[in-house]
Amino acid sequence: MIFVVSGPSGCGKSTIVDHVLKHVRNIHFSVSHTTRPKRNSEREGKDYYFVSRKEFERMITQKKFVEWAVVHGNYYGTSKREVRIKGKKGDIILGIDVQGAEQIRKKFKKAVFIFILPPDFKELRRRLEKRREDSPEAVCRRLEVSKKEVRHYSSFEYVIVNDCLDQAVSELESIILSTRCRLEMRREEIKPILENFKKSGDGSGTVLETSPRREK
Amino acid sequence: MIFVVSGPSGCGKSTIVDHVLKHVRNIHFSVSHTTRPKRNSEREGKDYYFVSRKEFERMITQKKFVEWAVVHGNYYGTSKREVRIKGKKGDIILGIDVQGAEQIRKKFKKAVFIFILPPDFKELRRRLEKRREDSPEAVCRRLEVSKKEVRHYSSFEYVIVNDCLDQAVSELESIILSTRCRLEMRREEIKPILENFKKSGDGSGTVLETSPRREK
Repeated sequence: MIFVVSGPSGCGKSTIVDHVLKHVRNIHFSVSHTTRPKRNSEREGKDYYFVSRKEFERMITQKKFVEWAVVHGNYYGTSKREVRIKGKKGDIILGIDVQGAEQIRKKFKKAVFIFILPPDFKELRRRLEKRREDSPEAVCRRLEVSKKEVRHYSSFEYVIVNDCLDQAVSELESIILSTRCRLEMRREEIKPILENFKKSGDGSGTVLETSPRREK
Repeated sequence: MIFVVSGPSGCGKSTIVDHVLKHVRNIHFSVSHTTRPKRNSEREGKDYYFVSRKEFERMITQKKFVEWAVVHGNYYGTSKREVRIKGKKGDIILGIDVQGAEQIRKKFKKAVFIFILPPDFKELRRRLEKRREDSPEAVCRRLEVSKKEVRHYSSFEYVIVNDCLDQAVSELESIILSTRCRLEMRREEIKPILENFKKSGDGSGTVLETSPRREK
């Protein structure tokens, strides 16, 4: 199962996803490729694969991506290889922009789409400024773009308002866990149980054999 | 929102629902009416409304139920009054048999249906015997009926295998919490946020007004 977490930049999707990955078993983070410069806190191959524009464009030409987009002047993309490798291990979770999410929707109809919404515009501005990774002009551009990005919410199955981090994390966890309880996800697991009910002799026979009350 | 928890008798639905009600806020248990005798552990008006057959049949005639069924020779039903009163307080959760669940499905298309499956037939027998509330013959009857009941699983949206109680409880909780994150559940909540994005002047203007970096 593929979980796609998206939302405007600064909405906190990476933080939420990081926390969820610590709590939920059997789910793996799909590391995106990007051409944007590495931030100090980021680790190559953990947060992103940092590549040159030339390398990224070569990968586009070679159709190496399941989705890619230009966001604030930088390339971002999810490689087919990443999805294949992480997908073998279990469920995967993607933290990507809204354009990328739309591309995934076309290719993976059954993926689960979750939109993260900041509690309001001012709060988004505060977060982008606090991050201190962009110039004031870049913050303005991100905010302008965010107005268009939030409109995409309506094509997502789930919406999480990132007002309180703990709650947002629990909500994303609940979406993952409940998806695993869906009938179509459980068919293989419950098959032997149903077989077992079918095969068991008539209730009376079997129960009388072992019932502690049968001598009564 | 209505959550309908169903499954064969002895599958543990009451125990799971009890635990969930302790952890999840803003959800209320719909107390069913029944004509079966009260067990020692049960409290009138908390676990069931215990009524006579005559009273139950009068309520049927007066169309007081949203669903009712005969299960193992006793009447069980959910009154319209119960759904109305509990529904005013918040979400409601019903723990009912599979026949009742089918009736709810016809009336409340948007309700969420969860099927509880015992891990296997032997385990179900063990639980029914352990309960020591039925004669061996009654246990046999229940087991026979359970074989038909499990077949209903395929019309449910979610399936929980009650192998480990803690996990079953977490799973039911996750289904409730994630349902509350569904786009259609959040529309009212997110409306002001989206309005707020729409109204905010262009990013540049607002951010320059208050950005700590504007003097740079």
